[in-house]
Amino acid sequence: MAAAAAAAAPGMRITSARHRVFSTRKLFSAACSATPRFTSKDQQRRHFPVRVTLRDLSSMPAPLPQDPPASSQEQRKRAFIAGVADDNGYGWAIAKALAAAGAEILVGTWVPALNIFETSLKRGKFDQSRLLPDGSLMEITKIYPLDAVYDSPRTFQRIRLLSSSSSSSYHLLLLQVKSNKRYAGASNWTVKEVVDSVKNDYGSIDILVHSLANGPEVAKPLLETSRNGYLAAISASSYSYVSLLRHFLPIMNPGGASISLTYIASERTIPGYGGGMSSAKAALESDTRVLAFEAGRKGKIRVNTISAGPLGSRAAKAIGFIEKMIEYSYANAPLQKELRADEVGNAAAFLVSPLASAVTGSVVYVDNGLNTMGLATDSPAITA
Amino acid sequence: MAAAAAAAAPGMRITSARHRVFSTRKLFSAACSATPRFTSKDQQRRHFPVRVTLRDLSSMPAPLPQDPPASSQEQRKRAFIAGVADDNGYGWAIAKALAAAGAEILVGTWVPALNIFETSLKRGKFDQSRLLPDGSLMEITKIYPLDAVYDSPRTFQRIRLLSSSSSSSYHLLLLQVKSNKRYAGASNWTVKEVVDSVKNDYGSIDILVHSLANGPEVAKPLLETSRNGYLAAISASSYSYVSLLRHFLPIMNPGGASISLTYIASERTIPGYGGGMSSAKAALESDTRVLAFEAGRKGKIRVNTISAGPLGSRAAKAIGFIEKMIEYSYANAPLQKELRADEVGNAAAFLVSPLASAVTGSVVYVDNGLNTMGLATDSPAITA
Amino acid sequence: MAAAAAAAAPGMRITSARHRVFSTRKLFSAACSATPRFTSKDQQRRHFPVRVTLRDLSSMPAPLPQDPPASSQEQRKRAFIAGVADDNGYGWAIAKALAAAGAEILVGTWVPALNIFETSLKRGKFDQSRLLPDGSLMEITKIYPLDAVYDSPRTFQRIRLLSSSSSSSYHLLLLQVKSNKRYAGASNWTVKEVVDSVKNDYGSIDILVHSLANGPEVAKPLLETSRNGYLAAISASSYSYVSLLRHFLPIMNPGGASISLTYIASERTIPGYGGGMSSAKAALESDTRVLAFEAGRKGKIRVNTISAGPLGSRAAKAIGFIEKMIEYSYANAPLQKELRADEVGNAAAFLVSPLASAVTGSVVYVDNGLNTMGLATDSPAITA
Amino acid sequence: MAAAAAAAAPGMRITSARHRVFSTRKLFSAACSATPRFTSKDQQRRHFPVRVTLRDLSSMPAPLPQDPPASSQEQRKRAFIAGVADDNGYGWAIAKALAAAGAEILVGTWVPALNIFETSLKRGKFDQSRLLPDGSLMEITKIYPLDAVYDSPRTFQRIRLLSSSSSSSYHLLLLQVKSNKRYAGASNWTVKEVVDSVKNDYGSIDILVHSLANGPEVAKPLLETSRNGYLAAISASSYSYVSLLRHFLPIMNPGGASISLTYIASERTIPGYGGGMSSAKAALESDTRVLAFEAGRKGKIRVNTISAGPLGSRAAKAIGFIEKMIEYSYANAPLQKELRADEVGNAAAFLVSPLASAVTGSVVYVDNGLNTMGLATDSPAITA
Repeated sequence: MAAAAAAAAPGMRITSARHRVFSTRKLFSAACSATPRFTSKDQQRRHFPVRVTLRDLSSMPAPLPQDPPASSQEQRKRAFIAGVADDNGYGWAIAKALAAAGAEILVGTWVPALNIFETSLKRGKFDQSRLLPDGSLMEITKIYPLDAVYDSPRTFQRIRLLSSSSSSSYHLLLLQVKSNKRYAGASNWTVKEVVDSVKNDYGSIDILVHSLANGPEVAKPLLETSRNGYLAAISASSYSYVSLLRHFLPIMNPGGASISLTYIASERTIPGYGGGMSSAKAALESDTRVLAFEAGRKGKIRVNTISAGPLGSRAAKAIGFIEKMIEYSYANAPLQKELRADEVGNAAAFLVSPLASAVTGSVVYVDNGLNTMGLATDSPAITA
Repeated sequence: MAAAAAAAAPGMRITSARHRVFSTRKLFSAACSATPRFTSKDQQRRHFPVRVTLRDLSSMPAPLPQDPPASSQEQRKRAFIAGVADDNGYGWAIAKALAAAGAEILVGTWVPALNIFETSLKRGKFDQSRLLPDGSLMEITKIYPLDAVYDSPRTFQRIRLLSSSSSSSYHLLLLQVKSNKRYAGASNWTVKEVVDSVKNDYGSIDILVHSLANGPEVAKPLLETSRNGYLAAISASSYSYVSLLRHFLPIMNPGGASISLTYIASERTIPGYGGGMSSAKAALESDTRVLAFEAGRKGKIRVNTISAGPLGSRAAKAIGFIEKMIEYSYANAPLQKELRADEVGNAAAFLVSPLASAVTGSVVYVDNGLNTMGLATDSPAITA
Repeated sequence: MAAAAAAAAPGMRITSARHRVFSTRKLFSAACSATPRFTSKDQQRRHFPVRVTLRDLSSMPAPLPQDPPASSQEQRKRAFIAGVADDNGYGWAIAKALAAAGAEILVGTWVPALNIFETSLKRGKFDQSRLLPDGSLMEITKIYPLDAVYDSPRTFQRIRLLSSSSSSSYHLLLLQVKSNKRYAGASNWTVKEVVDSVKNDYGSIDILVHSLANGPEVAKPLLETSRNGYLAAISASSYSYVSLLRHFLPIMNPGGASISLTYIASERTIPGYGGGMSSAKAALESDTRVLAFEAGRKGKIRVNTISAGPLGSRAAKAIGFIEKMIEYSYANAPLQKELRADEVGNAAAFLVSPLASAVTGSVVYVDNGLNTMGLATDSPAITA
Repeated sequence: MAAAAAAAAPGMRITSARHRVFSTRKLFSAACSATPRFTSKDQQRRHFPVRVTLRDLSSMPAPLPQDPPASSQEQRKRAFIAGVADDNGYGWAIAKALAAAGAEILVGTWVPALNIFETSLKRGKFDQSRLLPDGSLMEITKIYPLDAVYDSPRTFQRIRLLSSSSSSSYHLLLLQVKSNKRYAGASNWTVKEVVDSVKNDYGSIDILVHSLANGPEVAKPLLETSRNGYLAAISASSYSYVSLLRHFLPIMNPGGASISLTYIASERTIPGYGGGMSSAKAALESDTRVLAFEAGRKGKIRVNTISAGPLGSRAAKAIGFIEKMIEYSYANAPLQKELRADEVGNAAAFLVSPLASAVTGSVVYVDNGLNTMGLATDSPAITA
């Protein structure tokens, strides 16, 4: 995993930690001015002094029947977002949307990317990206090192033992974790340990966000994908969600919610999205339904996933596939515009808020409607 | 249509205009206290003075690329909700959610139900139902009489001419409209006329809500449904949406959005939901995708539909089918709770707001997750 | 209907009765040589003297539990195929596949096309097209005039009464039927009368095929489709199936089966397939599930539909849309070849045979796999 | 893997190698009498002397455009069926349906079950089950030992090396393979070796059948499933198919086809089908589409999967879950009958035959229609 360059976010964004450019961004500036908006008509209506807000709602207990009555001393919702390592992916955008709605933000950052992420944050390199609609900057309460392909120290111990004799490239990959200097300073980054730490630090969470994906052979067609590559994609992109929810569930407050990111390649063939990544997303979508049932019955937790369109970024464009997909979407989607990360963030914020208290097990498409098309109108067969 | 008792809302609620009981309701009381919520932690955070709100967002222009820059003198979003005739259905709940988010509310009310609806509203019978989270009462700016099975006066003229000799029960049904005393005082209630009136009154709208359904033979199995019954269901429940969007589109502001209500019976067999209503919902869902493309390309309008679970009401319970479906959902859905109308209202408010600016052509399930189940866990085959 | 030029077969083929060219065809010649095939290995295996054949199977009673034991005097399966009016569509190909499998063939032919179809058949113009794999020519036992938008003479009587005063173009269209000289020589062509005739002639059928579609405004976008055009598409393309099955069911033998033809435009947007035809196909697919339940429970009848790709024909190519779709499929489908009518015929034969005795309520795709693609690989956005 | 008891066939059948009972069976006896059927009418029709048969068709080259003209010396189709270890599952039934259609049968049998399978076959314990419709007994040309979780000897070598120090239960499981006495007598059972052997023995195949599934934690809810259990289910039930097709593709004749078995739990929640098996089936269905594209473009091979209902067997009934599912289906499916293995066999035979030459990437449901239901009619909520 350590050596693998690819860490696709919704299954699409391929980032490179080294060549990341921290561009100034105007996220939300188009959608959300920091100035409160009162129209002339608004002024006259005295009976609308307070607004229904995502933030208000997110601080309310979900109205499930058996819930205890809301305590007088309510807490802000607390969100743990697994898979934030820079300021230009869906994980970051979801964090911002939740922060803007009033949630407290904890993030889990992939161990090898931890150092640069923390440093950049401290040095103010993300400040423009942190800007919230109200003019404040998003606060990340705590950053946890995380590698979600390891469930517990036992996993790690097991793998270390294997290292003495193994010549397997797959297992070597795993073993590099320990010897990798980028893991050197970090500890307690397995799923179980992270959850234990969060429990010790804060007691509970309300919202779990999974923005993790990795497919070491994503560039290979499925027919050329090795078993190890396929299983690695499933382990990092699909089971990682089961593991996170499994471990977090005992400390999630009833009425809480979880969300992950998927991609249409699970449902229809997208040549170029290979290496078992389509398989992993299919498993993730299926698991969303099963986990919605199990976590719904067990802990009154809702589970949904967002099928997001391709998100452009400078690193992604270097690769080419995503740039093509962005062009393709622009040419063929019902809405002919680029997809912004905050659009996925807003949808995620809705889905984990009590506004969506009857929505669970769903795949919600945030893709300018591209998934609905049965025809590419820009095909030469059509335009000829 | 006038004689037909059934006017199922999301495809599920069967209401009877005569026996409607205007019960006091505590809509939103569980979900949204009227008291603004500030937690102790909130107090300390000075840098979060303003909130991202659905209302703020709904008053903003959608950030489509070619849009002109937002004018300094912004308008509230204006919504037209077709299919509000009482205070206990999804149409009403959507109106409230939009009002709470800051939108101006226009409604279209079925002509025969117009009088009692207006009277009840004036006499304060809905006041408790009108209560918004901020303590104010929802204002309905204007109520338009509407019968969405008629596109224009030409339709009507045509039918009147037919009346001299027709013995067709179907056409007689249509002709009763004219002679029906409940249509007597009303005028300009065809789709085209209503849109002309709205245009004259307000110039434009931003949001179109379709909460209309009618299937005169809904209680019959499909194999016993007559052609007229089937076509009437399609005309009232499916084409009515095409007609409304077709006529409203020229006066919808770019970045606007539309929503309708559907039911899972379109996708999977629900014995008891007959008369071609399942067919009509299937057509409606398909049309949602096609209209998302056409209206997206033509007017930058988004089009989605909510697949809502069964909503109980006193009238509905009298019929039995819906009560059974509510029990069924409670026993078998991932979330074991009743579905509240405001949950559909909140999802609708999200979908027509700029928060969902990349969501179009979608079927969004608001049903406690029942659609995800492949098994009824309460089946005697399983529990035995 | 009479005046309407369009009579799209699986929802795709647009034929014009006037300009139809009865080309000689080599249907099945590629797939099925008339010479029995015995390989050298076969010769040696004495223990395989008899073959499992679609024909054998189609003459067997379906193995439903409560069926009476197969009588010693078994009958050939009898099929009624609604919607055969020439020798180059899916209806014809299905008839041939069923004839080749041993079924007796009855067809229902649209009244205005009846004369030319019968004449061409008698004059031997279809002889090459009638060639079966065994070298014989398909026999059509009887041709029934049929217009499936009329359920019974009562429908017709009703419309004639309307004619005295109507100025409605839609009703005029219907009324033209009576005055249309192409209906002059025919009688008993409503659904009920046809079924009564078949009952009188043969007592029962085993297989019902629906190969009917018509959308007078198919060339218009949905947003420009009139209510009458939309309802006409639904009535001719969707309810016609309900009507046929409803009337035939009482004379269908238990274990029988029915099939119809649909098109992917029901599920995903295909610009160019308008006029409510996509809506009609969506309703048809939904009805397939509901009818599978109702007819399964009532008469042990199975109900499926085939989602067929575009089929080229000379008339179709004149229109352009279908030619484009054929090119599109060739460029983008997993199997890069033209779709042959006999491929749909063979799938239909399978689905109505006892080989598919556990398949019901299904949409089966016969389209070279185009429906599975999420990307058009020939898009300039991809190839650039 | 060796120790794992569960080896679910279509994802449903749970067998235990130890307690397997080789009951005599009357497979096909209901559906296919061994006596050729000639009705009196048939006798009279001289022009139907030869029949279109699945067998004929399966011995024909698929009519893909660029294919060379059919050679005068045609070959029988050759099928490799991975996952036959007894005479009462879907694998066996598919083998029989293919044999009845004239195909030559090769099977791959799980190594630990090989000995008892071969012995039983030789001793005639399966003779009644081998009975084909023509009265002959199915011949299995060759049985290959196979363990499809191993791609090549390199995999094995790798794992053996790990064995010296590993304490991982998962890796121990894998390592047991080598030390397991039931693997003692067998060799060349990795996927690559099996394909090499088939190539050496016969040169090529036309049909590949995947009837393999294993989920060691199938009885656990997903939330309690370990990473190793989840990945083992994926590896054995999903990637095993990628591996088989990947290795067989170079020796598959153009126009060939492949099929696998899946289960509705991939699409909708079926509590009780756990351990990541639902995830594996979701991945398998997604892979079916991707492989249909890749193998279609690369080798003109079609790829489909059958979503089969639950199949009862003595071993399965011991477990309970499947018996319940059979009861559930009987109570709630459109067709109220038990699902027979030969119904899946027949559908598989169709899908891999040239009759389905335009069907690829599909999920075909063979489940008495249960997948189409949105309601369990036997739920106490409905029947009350």
